Amino acid sequence: MGGLVSASTGRRVRVVLFDTFGTLVDWRSGIIAALQRFAAEEGLVIDAAELADAWRAQYQPRMQEVRAGSRPYVTLDVIHTEGLLAVLDDHGIDHRGLNADRIAALVHSWHKLEAWPDVVDGLNRLRRHAVVAPLSNAHTALLVGLSRHAGMHWDLVFGSDGSRAYKPDRRAYQAPAELLGLHPAETMLVAAHNDDLDGARRAGLATAFLSRPAEFGAEQQHDLEPTDHWDLVVDDVGSVAEAFSGPARRH
Amino acid sequence: MGGLVSASTGRRVRVVLFDTFGTLVDWRSGIIAALQRFAAEEGLVIDAAELADAWRAQYQPRMQEVRAGSRPYVTLDVIHTEGLLAVLDDHGIDHRGLNADRIAALVHSWHKLEAWPDVVDGLNRLRRHAVVAPLSNAHTALLVGLSRHAGMHWDLVFGSDGSRAYKPDRRAYQAPAELLGLHPAETMLVAAHNDDLDGARRAGLATAFLSRPAEFGAEQQHDLEPTDHWDLVVDDVGSVAEAFSGPARRH
Repeated sequence: MGGLVSASTGRRVRVVLFDTFGTLVDWRSGIIAALQRFAAEEGLVIDAAELADAWRAQYQPRMQEVRAGSRPYVTLDVIHTEGLLAVLDDHGIDHRGLNADRIAALVHSWHKLEAWPDVVDGLNRLRRHAVVAPLSNAHTALLVGLSRHAGMHWDLVFGSDGSRAYKPDRRAYQAPAELLGLHPAETMLVAAHNDDLDGARRAGLATAFLSRPAEFGAEQQHDLEPTDHWDLVVDDVGSVAEAFSGPARRH
Repeated sequence: MGGLVSASTGRRVRVVLFDTFGTLVDWRSGIIAALQRFAAEEGLVIDAAELADAWRAQYQPRMQEVRAGSRPYVTLDVIHTEGLLAVLDDHGIDHRGLNADRIAALVHSWHKLEAWPDVVDGLNRLRRHAVVAPLSNAHTALLVGLSRHAGMHWDLVFGSDGSRAYKPDRRAYQAPAELLGLHPAETMLVAAHNDDLDGARRAGLATAFLSRPAEFGAEQQHDLEPTDHWDLVVDDVGSVAEAFSGPARRH
């Protein structure tokens, strides 16, 4: 077993955790395609890319209600459903006239996204050197469906329904270490989003920035570069695997 | 996707859960070998097979304290440690004179057992047709270590520390369905032990008896045959995979 020693924590990393939407799976292309299918079936004329971005923009404020304690934990299926109905309403589309099964299938398209091309092989290589798991705001059922669809293999899968906390809540980041009987610094978060890594660092985890410059389309303005000294900065999952192969090195 | 419809519940099974010790891994051979190494290092003369059986016999009564509520949930690492010290004491071996690191390593040998020869390939085949996960009294860290050691791949891994309940506590059997948003009858337990299957059926799960006639050595007297009409009766994991391949069939 090779290894990686975090320069920021001084601890050897034993578990590598991955943010999922954007970091591993291309949610935007998948949701645009699902919206286009939905619009064709319902006879709607929409700008699918605009709707996809608007739908995603509903995500953080709705999770914030749970983080702030003003609402009990609900899964992303609930948050995605509410967000979709709000976006349709904002765009003058009355969802009460639409087929409920098709709306449910559209919400379920978040369970069936494709991985970026480097992901499946990279995760398999990394698993030779470290315990590998997702650390996502998705709940377990969504993560299991998504992983089976995209062919991503894990050592364990625990969703936000385990901790009933959404990142950047400290409890969400520390839940994997607690479950495995480890120190938080023995776990590392890999994410394409600087704010996620900031939350992980505040919770004591090692950090890796994985650049996904096309996650938000060709016009993406944020998260093109690391904004802090993360332990690792990489362009693909295979490079994370390489950092863990060979003798333990300090990063 | 193929499928299996349980004759007892009438429901299609979507998730196949596996008992682990005995059903998937040959705990007895592994523990005998670990005890032999331990005895050689410590200069002890022991009957390793007798000690292995005595150690395993400590397991149920100690879990029973948790089930009965007379003790809060503790993991199998705690139960295995206490059981080992009790067995050494029963055999006139004073553990206070032994090396503590070697005792810890001996307890940890429950994380490093080998799978029966049909298991790894059988699970991989079954995963094409159903969601596959362990349902063990082991905690998550033990299951992750054991699965990595034995090469067993899962769609998700949740241990008894998730439900904080030990089989045959009804909550332990129903936890996977609850986590995945399914009806308990959409899950099936595969086990080599009739009493485990009895608990699963009482909790509403479909059931499969997987015969392991050498789990307890050549003299094994119990669980040689199914003692009830379980939905499936098989000799290896590959036969479970076959039952799920092809069109959905009633068993």
